[in-house]
Amino acid sequence: MSLIVVGSVAYDGVETPHGKIDRMLGGACTYISLAAAYFTEVKIVGVVGEDFAQEDIDFLASRKIDLTGLDRVAGRTFFWAGRYSPDMNDRETLQTDLNVFADFDPKLPESYRAEPYLFLGNIQPDLQRSVRNQMKNVQLTGGDTMNYWINDFRPALLETLKQWDFLLINDSEARLLSGQHNLRRAASKIMEMGPHTLVIKRGEYGAILFRRGEHFMVPGYLLEDVFDPTGAGDCFAGGFIGHLAGRGVSPSDGDIDFAELRRAVIYGSVLGSFCCEKFGVDRFRTLTREEIEARYQEFKNHTSF
Amino acid sequence: MSLIVVGSVAYDGVETPHGKIDRMLGGACTYISLAAAYFTEVKIVGVVGEDFAQEDIDFLASRKIDLTGLDRVAGRTFFWAGRYSPDMNDRETLQTDLNVFADFDPKLPESYRAEPYLFLGNIQPDLQRSVRNQMKNVQLTGGDTMNYWINDFRPALLETLKQWDFLLINDSEARLLSGQHNLRRAASKIMEMGPHTLVIKRGEYGAILFRRGEHFMVPGYLLEDVFDPTGAGDCFAGGFIGHLAGRGVSPSDGDIDFAELRRAVIYGSVLGSFCCEKFGVDRFRTLTREEIEARYQEFKNHTSF
Repeated sequence: MSLIVVGSVAYDGVETPHGKIDRMLGGACTYISLAAAYFTEVKIVGVVGEDFAQEDIDFLASRKIDLTGLDRVAGRTFFWAGRYSPDMNDRETLQTDLNVFADFDPKLPESYRAEPYLFLGNIQPDLQRSVRNQMKNVQLTGGDTMNYWINDFRPALLETLKQWDFLLINDSEARLLSGQHNLRRAASKIMEMGPHTLVIKRGEYGAILFRRGEHFMVPGYLLEDVFDPTGAGDCFAGGFIGHLAGRGVSPSDGDIDFAELRRAVIYGSVLGSFCCEKFGVDRFRTLTREEIEARYQEFKNHTSF
Repeated sequence: MSLIVVGSVAYDGVETPHGKIDRMLGGACTYISLAAAYFTEVKIVGVVGEDFAQEDIDFLASRKIDLTGLDRVAGRTFFWAGRYSPDMNDRETLQTDLNVFADFDPKLPESYRAEPYLFLGNIQPDLQRSVRNQMKNVQLTGGDTMNYWINDFRPALLETLKQWDFLLINDSEARLLSGQHNLRRAASKIMEMGPHTLVIKRGEYGAILFRRGEHFMVPGYLLEDVFDPTGAGDCFAGGFIGHLAGRGVSPSDGDIDFAELRRAVIYGSVLGSFCCEKFGVDRFRTLTREEIEARYQEFKNHTSF
């Protein structure tokens, strides 16, 4: 019972008030998979160029992430560079070289197609739909999107969302997609588009889970130092879907236990918070399941009354 | 066992996306008292002009708020007018007429001086200290301040804070006061200034309670409609100190039960959220204690896992 994760595998250059890294492993698919792999078996679908380092392959493989669907083709790996504002609430993109990612047309290996869990990272909505349609027996489908697809590929995105059980987006994306500023109203509109479950991520302010007239809120973990927020939203997604897949959650008549979804949101928050503690994926080189459980308990201590 | 509240009693003109009111009852002392009066007996200290309406006196008196300390003097009542941005996260001040408030020099009636609870609304720090020094047997002192006093009256404010058990401020004020962007670090710095308990208010994102290396976070209540955020922070303060006073909380050897403080933060959040549902103080004309308890339970449902 594995989780299929589709999205970018990349190299990133990042500058934060804590330092500057010219080139490090990144990409949504990478972060989602590393986070989810603490909870479940993960199989990824992505594309990299000839420059993709063996040590990065080895790192992913060391987490038992199935790389059968990671194509290596002629050319260079997707590269993104950005610089964060002093308070790290904003970032400026300095460079985007799509490289081999420009022609990404995900084809699932036969060994992936019968798996029950699918997370579609932030890629062109028609490609997300194509992947969904290659799956034979999927029980839980969800994913991410972004402003660019919401603005310029709206009809394709709306068609894609019809097939999703859940959507994870940030607050500005939720407002853009729904045309509503108020998040409760935005959530109602979005859930009419298809997903029965919606998670709105609010960066340092936490997240809100919406489902059938109910909602659940978690504040952001209060870090002493945010080293690098790159990938935190993807790690949230990985913790969320990873927990659901690891628990074998399946929507019977379209329903998922709300308590299990709440816990998934907490695990998402936990993984997102760890991600910020070091540059890039570095925190995941040492992070243990015990540390994850300890922080889950911290969330309980910090929010219960 | 009453709560003394000191601060502005005013008229406000407010424009929000939901409408415009030229003149309505306002002022920090008013909001704090109305909120706290659901939990405890309140005695206020303030000043109004000859234009202060009998119906506003009657409204406050109907909440059993002791008005012995509300001076009526020659001149007009403090008037403030402002306009909110479309998303209501910012506001622009259109008019500030201090009027009789310019010479406010609070003198406590003899009947107030032996009370155990004191909340000092946002006024000049030397005046806050003068009030504190008029109290004979105070057990719990706290209050609010703002950017203007932090920037231009820093030594006076630091002297004043030494006497306080708790401080309630918003996140930008906490950063300004401490010189630290990170809220955990900001909180540590501020608690070295005197208050053993600190509540940082984050507007729609909720609040964080800090105390002796511990913290507790609550997300903001998700309203469908924010009509008018004026006074929400003051109502938070009123709910917070009102609950502590109503429960008879007293710091034995400087300590207060952390569980009681958590509940006070939730009651603060509850009162702040109700305040936004109508213009000015209007929600408090009908709000019942039962509605407050129901929303307290909602907070539990929306945050527990």
